[in-house]
Amino acid sequence: MQELTGLRFKRLLLTGAAGALGRMLRPRMKRYCDVLRVSDIAPMDPAGSGEEVVVAPLEDEAAMYALLDGVDAVLHFGGVSIEKPFSTVLPANIVGAYNLYEAARRRGTKRIIFASSNHVTGFYGQGETIKAHVVPRPDTYYGLSKAFGENLAQFYFDRHGLETVSLRIGSCLPEPVDRRQLSSWLSHDDMERLLVASLTAPVVGHSIVYGASNNRTTWWDNSQANHVGYQPQDSSERWRPAIEAAQPQVDPTRPEVRFQGGGFVVLGPFPFAGQE
Amino acid sequence: MQELTGLRFKRLLLTGAAGALGRMLRPRMKRYCDVLRVSDIAPMDPAGSGEEVVVAPLEDEAAMYALLDGVDAVLHFGGVSIEKPFSTVLPANIVGAYNLYEAARRRGTKRIIFASSNHVTGFYGQGETIKAHVVPRPDTYYGLSKAFGENLAQFYFDRHGLETVSLRIGSCLPEPVDRRQLSSWLSHDDMERLLVASLTAPVVGHSIVYGASNNRTTWWDNSQANHVGYQPQDSSERWRPAIEAAQPQVDPTRPEVRFQGGGFVVLGPFPFAGQE
Amino acid sequence: MQELTGLRFKRLLLTGAAGALGRMLRPRMKRYCDVLRVSDIAPMDPAGSGEEVVVAPLEDEAAMYALLDGVDAVLHFGGVSIEKPFSTVLPANIVGAYNLYEAARRRGTKRIIFASSNHVTGFYGQGETIKAHVVPRPDTYYGLSKAFGENLAQFYFDRHGLETVSLRIGSCLPEPVDRRQLSSWLSHDDMERLLVASLTAPVVGHSIVYGASNNRTTWWDNSQANHVGYQPQDSSERWRPAIEAAQPQVDPTRPEVRFQGGGFVVLGPFPFAGQE
Amino acid sequence: MQELTGLRFKRLLLTGAAGALGRMLRPRMKRYCDVLRVSDIAPMDPAGSGEEVVVAPLEDEAAMYALLDGVDAVLHFGGVSIEKPFSTVLPANIVGAYNLYEAARRRGTKRIIFASSNHVTGFYGQGETIKAHVVPRPDTYYGLSKAFGENLAQFYFDRHGLETVSLRIGSCLPEPVDRRQLSSWLSHDDMERLLVASLTAPVVGHSIVYGASNNRTTWWDNSQANHVGYQPQDSSERWRPAIEAAQPQVDPTRPEVRFQGGGFVVLGPFPFAGQE
Amino acid sequence: MQELTGLRFKRLLLTGAAGALGRMLRPRMKRYCDVLRVSDIAPMDPAGSGEEVVVAPLEDEAAMYALLDGVDAVLHFGGVSIEKPFSTVLPANIVGAYNLYEAARRRGTKRIIFASSNHVTGFYGQGETIKAHVVPRPDTYYGLSKAFGENLAQFYFDRHGLETVSLRIGSCLPEPVDRRQLSSWLSHDDMERLLVASLTAPVVGHSIVYGASNNRTTWWDNSQANHVGYQPQDSSERWRPAIEAAQPQVDPTRPEVRFQGGGFVVLGPFPFAGQE
Amino acid sequence: MQELTGLRFKRLLLTGAAGALGRMLRPRMKRYCDVLRVSDIAPMDPAGSGEEVVVAPLEDEAAMYALLDGVDAVLHFGGVSIEKPFSTVLPANIVGAYNLYEAARRRGTKRIIFASSNHVTGFYGQGETIKAHVVPRPDTYYGLSKAFGENLAQFYFDRHGLETVSLRIGSCLPEPVDRRQLSSWLSHDDMERLLVASLTAPVVGHSIVYGASNNRTTWWDNSQANHVGYQPQDSSERWRPAIEAAQPQVDPTRPEVRFQGGGFVVLGPFPFAGQE
Repeated sequence: MQELTGLRFKRLLLTGAAGALGRMLRPRMKRYCDVLRVSDIAPMDPAGSGEEVVVAPLEDEAAMYALLDGVDAVLHFGGVSIEKPFSTVLPANIVGAYNLYEAARRRGTKRIIFASSNHVTGFYGQGETIKAHVVPRPDTYYGLSKAFGENLAQFYFDRHGLETVSLRIGSCLPEPVDRRQLSSWLSHDDMERLLVASLTAPVVGHSIVYGASNNRTTWWDNSQANHVGYQPQDSSERWRPAIEAAQPQVDPTRPEVRFQGGGFVVLGPFPFAGQE
Repeated sequence: MQELTGLRFKRLLLTGAAGALGRMLRPRMKRYCDVLRVSDIAPMDPAGSGEEVVVAPLEDEAAMYALLDGVDAVLHFGGVSIEKPFSTVLPANIVGAYNLYEAARRRGTKRIIFASSNHVTGFYGQGETIKAHVVPRPDTYYGLSKAFGENLAQFYFDRHGLETVSLRIGSCLPEPVDRRQLSSWLSHDDMERLLVASLTAPVVGHSIVYGASNNRTTWWDNSQANHVGYQPQDSSERWRPAIEAAQPQVDPTRPEVRFQGGGFVVLGPFPFAGQE
Repeated sequence: MQELTGLRFKRLLLTGAAGALGRMLRPRMKRYCDVLRVSDIAPMDPAGSGEEVVVAPLEDEAAMYALLDGVDAVLHFGGVSIEKPFSTVLPANIVGAYNLYEAARRRGTKRIIFASSNHVTGFYGQGETIKAHVVPRPDTYYGLSKAFGENLAQFYFDRHGLETVSLRIGSCLPEPVDRRQLSSWLSHDDMERLLVASLTAPVVGHSIVYGASNNRTTWWDNSQANHVGYQPQDSSERWRPAIEAAQPQVDPTRPEVRFQGGGFVVLGPFPFAGQE
Repeated sequence: MQELTGLRFKRLLLTGAAGALGRMLRPRMKRYCDVLRVSDIAPMDPAGSGEEVVVAPLEDEAAMYALLDGVDAVLHFGGVSIEKPFSTVLPANIVGAYNLYEAARRRGTKRIIFASSNHVTGFYGQGETIKAHVVPRPDTYYGLSKAFGENLAQFYFDRHGLETVSLRIGSCLPEPVDRRQLSSWLSHDDMERLLVASLTAPVVGHSIVYGASNNRTTWWDNSQANHVGYQPQDSSERWRPAIEAAQPQVDPTRPEVRFQGGGFVVLGPFPFAGQE
Repeated sequence: MQELTGLRFKRLLLTGAAGALGRMLRPRMKRYCDVLRVSDIAPMDPAGSGEEVVVAPLEDEAAMYALLDGVDAVLHFGGVSIEKPFSTVLPANIVGAYNLYEAARRRGTKRIIFASSNHVTGFYGQGETIKAHVVPRPDTYYGLSKAFGENLAQFYFDRHGLETVSLRIGSCLPEPVDRRQLSSWLSHDDMERLLVASLTAPVVGHSIVYGASNNRTTWWDNSQANHVGYQPQDSSERWRPAIEAAQPQVDPTRPEVRFQGGGFVVLGPFPFAGQE
Repeated sequence: MQELTGLRFKRLLLTGAAGALGRMLRPRMKRYCDVLRVSDIAPMDPAGSGEEVVVAPLEDEAAMYALLDGVDAVLHFGGVSIEKPFSTVLPANIVGAYNLYEAARRRGTKRIIFASSNHVTGFYGQGETIKAHVVPRPDTYYGLSKAFGENLAQFYFDRHGLETVSLRIGSCLPEPVDRRQLSSWLSHDDMERLLVASLTAPVVGHSIVYGASNNRTTWWDNSQANHVGYQPQDSSERWRPAIEAAQPQVDPTRPEVRFQGGGFVVLGPFPFAGQE
């Protein structure tokens, strides 16, 4: 994909660079900055030209202050990205988010692009379309931690003027793999479009955007965030025939089909006992 | 038009198969199922391969129970589709809809695609844009019967888990023929797209979608039903020059121009006496 | 209770006069008109001074035309007021409502006060507060027939200028008798206030008002109908201690507790299978 | 650009014909009418074939009555189009608008396309997306005068049945020239599309449409005016690289960046003292 | 009535002091300030203790600058308060409002209480309830000028931080005199409550409040302005019997009954030609 | 104050019993249960009749499981109730809330009344009125932790059926002490009313209610929670004269006056840098 903007950042920080999304985004985002600083706690590829590789646990306040030094903007993909026990989600996603924002404030970072998740609203139904400004209905501890991050972002904007675009990412994968993802899929190229739009829109305050491709079926209406300028170009539609052939039947009375969060809403060692 | 999905239904039921829409849809919908059962009270073409032809009055409860036997999903186009005296609309569209839903419940049908009508909201103005969740303003007994059908569908979902997509169909014709239809036209191909989307969306509960092509001018905003995934591909625009040439003048103070329902709002042997 | 208005109607019609509400309302409404015409198909008390007693089945079109002759306004309490098979609800509440409105139009009646029901929206939750302009979610055939009546009223206003106030009556009883009715109770005096307000507000178009007393707990927000001027004066609160003592436990996971419609949502010879 | 409609007007009036937009629009709009009457107080090109050139100050009531004689519809681009002292804005834009509407009413003109401005809502943020029905927040005396014009249009429709489409025009220029205009730009061709749509939609009452091209970033959501049928075809996107290169930095804490009105919000010989 | 607050203003300005409302308010408002400056162009009573009487035409810019000197807050009741030709409304209500706000800005006045009018929204129906943030639908040139004043107030707050409470006053009279005023009446005591609340609420930005007493019937919902703290104590109810007896019949098909603006909507030497 | 309900709970748990609110509530809530279990980490009065006193840190998972044993419902007032460093807020209010909810789920507790705070939305303006379903705008780490608790409550209801009423408590004090508290004050008696309503409403799902007395000025609209049945009886009004006399001047341009959160919005060792 061509570069999507002529704007150049001096130094961007990509956290979570060892994760699946981080590895995919690293070469893509390098093109938009003089220096791309990447961080994680897991092993990462060595620094290429114009890159800085930093091992920095999100829970480590001092490490975060160092990490944010000299950074224009952050792509915050670090932390736990699937459901885990609360004791695991807490340090990475709650303490970690706090450390990152506080470090950004102290170091004068202007904007954070926060990888939130559709699981912030996973208990809305697959049979309804929602906007971003609905009451959160997280479906997991993971989703709960992302809702915390969004509120944190709102606070740092209202109190300190630090801007954020919170991205409620759907299913960012090379291709969709099941019926649910026909609605929730976000292509890698559209993810890049979303990040570049979020980085370059002149004013964002704290804006929330669902991260999905231009799929024919969707549960999300991004019309409250036209100002961010995200226009997806891909669609899950060409995988539809194969996926529908492989998974012809879905049962809308099962929670994992009924709710937008899909399988996340029934994770954990206890039966589903919600009602609405 | 190519088949729009690889999903196959064992048996679909198309009611109203002898009507204009029914005849158009019969060969199209045959492609999505092993067996297409068609029904009407008027004469129909004999059964082709993979077809079952049933004469079944909607008012006949027992006939409806038989008709719904072994059916996965229903395309309910039966009944009166224009304005008639209430005594005519009642058995076909009100009793008939009840019989159909009750039979579907008893026979375990999973989903009904209900041919509702834009005349459910025909008393909104041509100078405004509405969403599906507005208060109904039917313009005729016909429109009133369709509003009944939508409420019935909501009840059968809330009480019995039977899903419906109610389609508020505009003007489904080979081509638009007057100024109003430049806004309300639904092409035959887009009708097929709408039906396939409604049949194959994994979860719909009771959803309401306006059935219009991608016309430049419209009165309807389907953004509350993105989850159904209807994306029209046709447009009335190429007929615009001819229609505007043939009908250059419209008078927005006349009820039939002022309201979305068009000529329907002045049908009947009495003058128009509404005010707003 | 004192008379609530000095306005005098020449002739009011009260349908359903043999029912529980009809009998309660008959002497109350007599005070606001020169002649009170009452009708039902069941035996009624003989006509008192200034009264006319008419046996008139709602299903009988000709009888309705006669019944509406010379009537200024109608209090339409006739028809089935509890859940019944659809075949019973249909003639009384659907055909009957049509006959009444069509007769009113032909005879020049100005306004109808329509006894609708909270069961038009019975599938909203007891844990939420709704306004009247939400999408109907009827809980029974009975509720469905009342939703039909409301749409009919909207149509007769839009098309013919005949005004209606639709009253979504809660539990109109001498006193509340269970936990649900602490929220839904409508005292007899407040019912009279509601009727007088609906009859005397200068302009109502088609307005919808929930009919409940000023109970501390409620599910309904009448703020879209301030223009009707209904201000309840009674409250269920003084029965609360006794009712709570008699029925200390309610289980919010049971449908009859969870939904506003209460026991209505599980009526009928089939288990509850709705999900949301 | 091809003609966009086959509809022909007998006589259109274009006010403000000597201005930048007026000169651009004059040949374009000529194609849609037998006679194009153009007016201004500044020198205009002499009348071509099918043209009438009239010098007519908007403040001159009698001149306005003459100007509107025999006119089917008006494109009202006259008056002050940038910020000026109130004493300058008043006669041209407030008295002038009144004179125009009153003349149109007296002469039986059917529809006015009113060149309003995005500066009617210039104090909304560049970090939010708004619909047309929000509370006005004008950013200048100029914006205030356009808000007056919109209210005048609403009044003349409600009271006299004279229809208007108010166009909240963004930045109508040959090409966008700064970061703000990447969001607010309206191409000349899209301006023509907007005018033709506004002139030819069968019913508009008083409708309000934001006038912007199909830019990737925008602050405006026109979904309340689908009935007008404006579909922009151009986009600022191809100027983005050059503009971003020339103006890489914007500071979202400065009022002229923070608010949609841009530089207008700080015009005048006094510091910015607003807060929210 | 007792004084409603212990807060004391050094100097309040009351414009329009020779008018009916001005004369009523002068002694009442005197109690809340050390000095009450009153102004008008018509003769006023001579200055009492703690009063300053100033003849100052609103159209006279210099006079306005002098008038605002040393003023903490303004109660702006000056200008035309009934329907007049536009040429009369313009200088008093449009130029006058501008002069007042510009003088207040220059002189450092902190807050203006602006006597707006329910005629800003007079074309909404008497059969509906509205909130203050609806699109304005003025019913007269007078109403139009008040809508201008509200927009001016919004501009002076957004641009200059000058706060306003705009009061959409109903019918402020000693007692209601017709059926319409049973809904729109504002008692003199409630007017004082409204002014004191508007003056003393700590933060108002630009807030809009309908000025009506606690009448049983109303068209207005002030719930968007709870922060201003206006709680009316009076009601039109005790005049209802006499008014209803004197005016038993109203015809909801006549514009002056149908719309909230009442008789204003048909003023002027031309028939009513609006439609919705 | 009299007991407000005849309903009796076997065992209620009051956390935070050593705090100011806890001490006030302990004797009040004892009256509604056979056993009141109270907990804190600070010293508490010894157990009276029908009381159990437990020292249990919210951060101690095992202690929480024991604490919730045999509890019908919880009044969760434990944790930090003012602004503190994030490292202090985290264990008490975030980990503590998680431990409490998880323990309640495991022990089968039916309902939690969660002492949330108006500081969840403290960055809305004192010049606007909000409903509970707005996007959170916390003003402190404390407010952020309460927003987390509300989302946690939503999750435990959606996933596990555990009901919560989240109370966004204003200023719960014996009497209001400054201008801001004239709007935000919650009397002790009204706090008891709020708790009893929240405990006894039959169905609450996850409901959010602002906790303020019936003050004349307020920023909060509880109309989305009529079903909870909270009706405050007290008002700050009688303290108004004294407070206004003591604090006659407030400056609406200072953040602590401009925003609902008051002084909280400027806490901390850094200047205010927010903008909207």
